[in-house]
Amino acid sequence: MQPNKESLLQAVDDAVRMAARTLVRTARHGALALVDAMEYGPSVSRVGLATDTDGMPLFPNSSLSGRIEAMTRDGRAALLLGEPGRGDPLAHPRLSLTGTVRRLAGETHARCRRRYLERHPKASLYIDFPDFSLWRFEIASAAYVQGFGKAYALDRADLETRCADWPEWHAMEAGAIAHMNLDHRDATRLYATRLCGADDGDWRITGLDPEGIDLASGDDHRRYTYPAPLARAEELRPRLIELAGEARQQAAMDRVRHSGHSENEPGIP
Amino acid sequence: MQPNKESLLQAVDDAVRMAARTLVRTARHGALALVDAMEYGPSVSRVGLATDTDGMPLFPNSSLSGRIEAMTRDGRAALLLGEPGRGDPLAHPRLSLTGTVRRLAGETHARCRRRYLERHPKASLYIDFPDFSLWRFEIASAAYVQGFGKAYALDRADLETRCADWPEWHAMEAGAIAHMNLDHRDATRLYATRLCGADDGDWRITGLDPEGIDLASGDDHRRYTYPAPLARAEELRPRLIELAGEARQQAAMDRVRHSGHSENEPGIP
Repeated sequence: MQPNKESLLQAVDDAVRMAARTLVRTARHGALALVDAMEYGPSVSRVGLATDTDGMPLFPNSSLSGRIEAMTRDGRAALLLGEPGRGDPLAHPRLSLTGTVRRLAGETHARCRRRYLERHPKASLYIDFPDFSLWRFEIASAAYVQGFGKAYALDRADLETRCADWPEWHAMEAGAIAHMNLDHRDATRLYATRLCGADDGDWRITGLDPEGIDLASGDDHRRYTYPAPLARAEELRPRLIELAGEARQQAAMDRVRHSGHSENEPGIP
Repeated sequence: MQPNKESLLQAVDDAVRMAARTLVRTARHGALALVDAMEYGPSVSRVGLATDTDGMPLFPNSSLSGRIEAMTRDGRAALLLGEPGRGDPLAHPRLSLTGTVRRLAGETHARCRRRYLERHPKASLYIDFPDFSLWRFEIASAAYVQGFGKAYALDRADLETRCADWPEWHAMEAGAIAHMNLDHRDATRLYATRLCGADDGDWRITGLDPEGIDLASGDDHRRYTYPAPLARAEELRPRLIELAGEARQQAAMDRVRHSGHSENEPGIP
């Protein structure tokens, strides 16, 4: 639900923006609401989710379950993200996005298809079927409800990742992900376990953008956000090396703390 | 998304009806889609869920997060139910309901408030706040997607529980639940573990209707559906006694099977 202006909205700060962005980047699925173009009746369906590099949600649709083109007026749509954990479902964070959907083609389709498959490898079984199309959700505004009495009104700028040179970034991203996942699985694991506090697992990178790293191990999806965003693609490599160093140092210090000595510990170079 | 008539819909049978009904009865939360009465823009938000005795979904709304009255045209709404488990979120069952919402008052409000609190005890902290209202979703039609290529179009009759005398049933339900939860926790536990295949836990009954028993232990919600529905309220007591006998017999047979003998087993009367 959109908060109305008279309601008890809280002021938006960087911590709220980061929590909302992390929710968008890690959501595996969402509820997509559309309004029938003919009769203005609402419908809602589950969509699988990934994000484009700039943080806009991506989802596939099969025309067998309804042609989106016929189910929306001017492309208008809403998207609910967030999975309740234990206890009262209203006590858990969720994000209601409002905006428009557009069907992807060409270069954008190729990039978004690749990014969707990085997050949902099993979708390779059907994503190229003729009834499937890939869509991008253009966020216009959002309501972020963190829990009881904690509601925030966000706009697109609060959720969008910016970059000085997207073509340069897009020319580099796929190769950088492949390189990290092939040759630096140890560093990738440390990003997840040391920088995101995740359990050990078969961690791989699923997305790289100027603001952070998306990681997955099975159904566990995590996001590491850099303290300061990268200005250009060329800053990525030194940043990843630096982060791996920091994560290794943290791991080493943890071992010292737990064992009382650091020498002859396996795994510390 | 509503299935269109040209799509590859499957024929609806009793097993599909039962799976869809069980999903409605056990859903803890859903995504409610509305269409703005002024500009026809869609919105979607999370709602906590219970059901009325006839199987129609119930949910509370706080006017602080938006007044539903202003967010829907002619009360029209859609509701998505179902939680994806592991793996591809599109491989898991979900139900897209289409219908209208109406705000509850009087006797219906009292009954639905009680049933909502049986399923969400912590909602007693806020359900009577002046900004909270309770709503009932009148199902008109539904799309049940059980997984890839398994989609069904349902109507209200496929999901509605009927009763020859609702006033008689409603006069009895609350007392029967209280009696079972106070004096027959052992039978309630057997309904959950023996008839629904649930793990042992602090099981209690959260709802009784002519078609079955709703049960909960923490966040685990289960539904037992009678092989044949009850025609009248007076049939409930003998049916519950009979079921407890069946469940005890199953438990005893399992013990015989596992131990090779049945005598001197604790817990078998």
